[in-house]
Amino acid sequence: MINANNPALTSWIEVPSNSDFPIQNIPFGIFKSGQLAPRVGSRIGDKVIDLKSLFVLGYLSNLPFSQEDFDTDALNNLMKHGKKGARDLRNRLSKLFSTDNHDLQGNTHHVEQVLIDADNVDMLLPVQIGDYTDFYSSRDHATNVGTMFRDPNNALLPNWLWIPVGYHGRASSIIPSGVPIKRPKGQTLPNEGEDPVFGPCRLLDFELEMAFITFDGKPLGESISTKEAEDYIFGMCIMNDWSARDIQKWEYVPLGPFLAKNFASSISPWIVTMDALEPFKLEGPLQDPKVLSYLEYEGKYHYDIHLEVGIQPENAAETVVCNSNYKHMYWNMAQQLAHHTINGCNIRRGDMMASGTISGPTTNSFGSMLEISWKGTKPVILKEGGERKFINDLDTVIMRGHCSKDGVRIGFGEVSTKVLPAE
Amino acid sequence: MINANNPALTSWIEVPSNSDFPIQNIPFGIFKSGQLAPRVGSRIGDKVIDLKSLFVLGYLSNLPFSQEDFDTDALNNLMKHGKKGARDLRNRLSKLFSTDNHDLQGNTHHVEQVLIDADNVDMLLPVQIGDYTDFYSSRDHATNVGTMFRDPNNALLPNWLWIPVGYHGRASSIIPSGVPIKRPKGQTLPNEGEDPVFGPCRLLDFELEMAFITFDGKPLGESISTKEAEDYIFGMCIMNDWSARDIQKWEYVPLGPFLAKNFASSISPWIVTMDALEPFKLEGPLQDPKVLSYLEYEGKYHYDIHLEVGIQPENAAETVVCNSNYKHMYWNMAQQLAHHTINGCNIRRGDMMASGTISGPTTNSFGSMLEISWKGTKPVILKEGGERKFINDLDTVIMRGHCSKDGVRIGFGEVSTKVLPAE
Repeated sequence: MINANNPALTSWIEVPSNSDFPIQNIPFGIFKSGQLAPRVGSRIGDKVIDLKSLFVLGYLSNLPFSQEDFDTDALNNLMKHGKKGARDLRNRLSKLFSTDNHDLQGNTHHVEQVLIDADNVDMLLPVQIGDYTDFYSSRDHATNVGTMFRDPNNALLPNWLWIPVGYHGRASSIIPSGVPIKRPKGQTLPNEGEDPVFGPCRLLDFELEMAFITFDGKPLGESISTKEAEDYIFGMCIMNDWSARDIQKWEYVPLGPFLAKNFASSISPWIVTMDALEPFKLEGPLQDPKVLSYLEYEGKYHYDIHLEVGIQPENAAETVVCNSNYKHMYWNMAQQLAHHTINGCNIRRGDMMASGTISGPTTNSFGSMLEISWKGTKPVILKEGGERKFINDLDTVIMRGHCSKDGVRIGFGEVSTKVLPAE
Repeated sequence: MINANNPALTSWIEVPSNSDFPIQNIPFGIFKSGQLAPRVGSRIGDKVIDLKSLFVLGYLSNLPFSQEDFDTDALNNLMKHGKKGARDLRNRLSKLFSTDNHDLQGNTHHVEQVLIDADNVDMLLPVQIGDYTDFYSSRDHATNVGTMFRDPNNALLPNWLWIPVGYHGRASSIIPSGVPIKRPKGQTLPNEGEDPVFGPCRLLDFELEMAFITFDGKPLGESISTKEAEDYIFGMCIMNDWSARDIQKWEYVPLGPFLAKNFASSISPWIVTMDALEPFKLEGPLQDPKVLSYLEYEGKYHYDIHLEVGIQPENAAETVVCNSNYKHMYWNMAQQLAHHTINGCNIRRGDMMASGTISGPTTNSFGSMLEISWKGTKPVILKEGGERKFINDLDTVIMRGHCSKDGVRIGFGEVSTKVLPAE
């Protein structure tokens, strides 16, 4: 399996130091370049690899793929070959682009067709997303929210330590990095007991999350166990699950957040496979009370992924406002998937499941402005002056994530989104 | 426009009295018959009309459709032609099958290719559903729930009269009539203060709902006004939004129902167009307090649709346990769609939006066993003996709906679902 456990492996494509995309990563995405139709790509260093061209030129022969798996605007076709298919494909790419391999390296004409400068492509939404589920699996985040809005001495709701709480979100409004969002409008209740008003959201927030994408699942009525879960997970990306806190507060009882969330969720465009992330597995936290048997798991299903969030006002420098880590999750992906399907709910190829806001135990690791500014009571001072309680118009919010081990850095790139004023 | 405003129109296909499908209906669905691949059909009387064959034989010429609009397992292709396309197609079908038209009627060979006995087809899921939203728009239902679980004197939550409350549901587990469901398993809390337990749901319930399907919407960031809403709605079906009340109670605070709902929602397979339903429009209820301006509407957007629910134990007669009507909705579809998109949330072709449980003001019009049996305190007596507080294993729940005017009955057929035991 190609990943950071092979630190000696190098590519004949130059990989700048601190690149998220060494030959050990080999993520998948959908790109558009010039007049070319959208297609499947991978990435090493600052080069995007055109997998359709690679297929047409014969470099992906003797693998189970056909041209329609690469000549398409979503990874869903490729994903129908499952975990083994994705693994075989990454192994082939790793071989083709490794320093000592000359199959492609020596053919300048082919290399020109296959490699494109990353600066010259637009990265599109990688997957046609079926259903989108958002979990709420960071204990620190749930504790912070409970402390602010309910009872500091009883911050977690009674079900939180028993259930990987989650809810259904909106798939249609998931967009890739680089697509700006408009500040949403909606109903809010300025003062308790008065009538609600309509207007632009005043408390626009980000939520630092990670999301995973599923392969084909089981039929309706069957469940996926924690032990089986990994076979159903293709890879991960970073997600900014935009939130309108004032709209949320007025609408969310009793059926949960709706318009406060479904105006946009932004994701990083490269799907990093679970194989690439394998070396970064960690033990999870002790779960006390002991979970019910269908949520028990053996082995390591947590991951050490450094995450950061920056706010960049227009024409000003970025200020990093959060340094968190995916390892802070209480419930892991195997438990989330086992819970989601324990009632027989079917998952499908291309479903997306997000972690919920990933907050750590310290103020500088909180994953939303709601927590960082503690409901707006502690503004963040920006590098070039000014402060933020929530997100302003024309701010760009940038999230980044990476793992590192033995000098190998496996990263996700970034999800960067500019906020435009409400119309 | 072809609908019940043309009561004199008759078809050369025999239409039994009390059929839901006179020539004034002309719904759309997906069927499978023998070795034929799934394809688009319509229906008159007890005959399913094979629209692919009709197209291939040239009877749908000079319309904007191509073969892929009919030779497919979902109505989504057909729906890309929008409201006008669906209207033109219904007009053509109405003309072809009206008593005085001999274009097809006289060609026995063609008629044999085009018409199939409804008993000999399997009706499949009609639409590839993108996002599924469930509203909560019946005032009587919300009042009943609030009375049972909160405060009878303050049954409606503060936001209910201001917001067409809704939440995102699961699209993957929406199934057509005839597909059995398994009783879901999950976590429940038998006694307050104790630990939750895992096992089969003990309080399985139906919810009588209607759902509408959307055409292509507007891009992310734009809104659909109440005035525009009708142009974006293709048609409707009946939905049984299965609910596990004990799972729901333990999981739903604070993010809403999740596993209690997403194990299955069953729909009737024929999509009845809004054109066919036009003659059944009614004034809506007075909305007090006055709604915010983006929810105001002019004209009639409520519909007089009789609905009923029956429970049929295995090898026993059916007992009708609910007679309700879609006219009992407080919030109408135009308001639901305007609210859903006011924050810029984009809808897509094939999205489904359901009404929420449709309860009327009287006990016999309540749309769920939770309400009918008043939390299990008032069991329903079944026709052939026995009683029900909720739904038992091997029960079949059947929902039907129709409108009628001037002797013309426009119906939806039924959604019938058998409950199998948990495994």
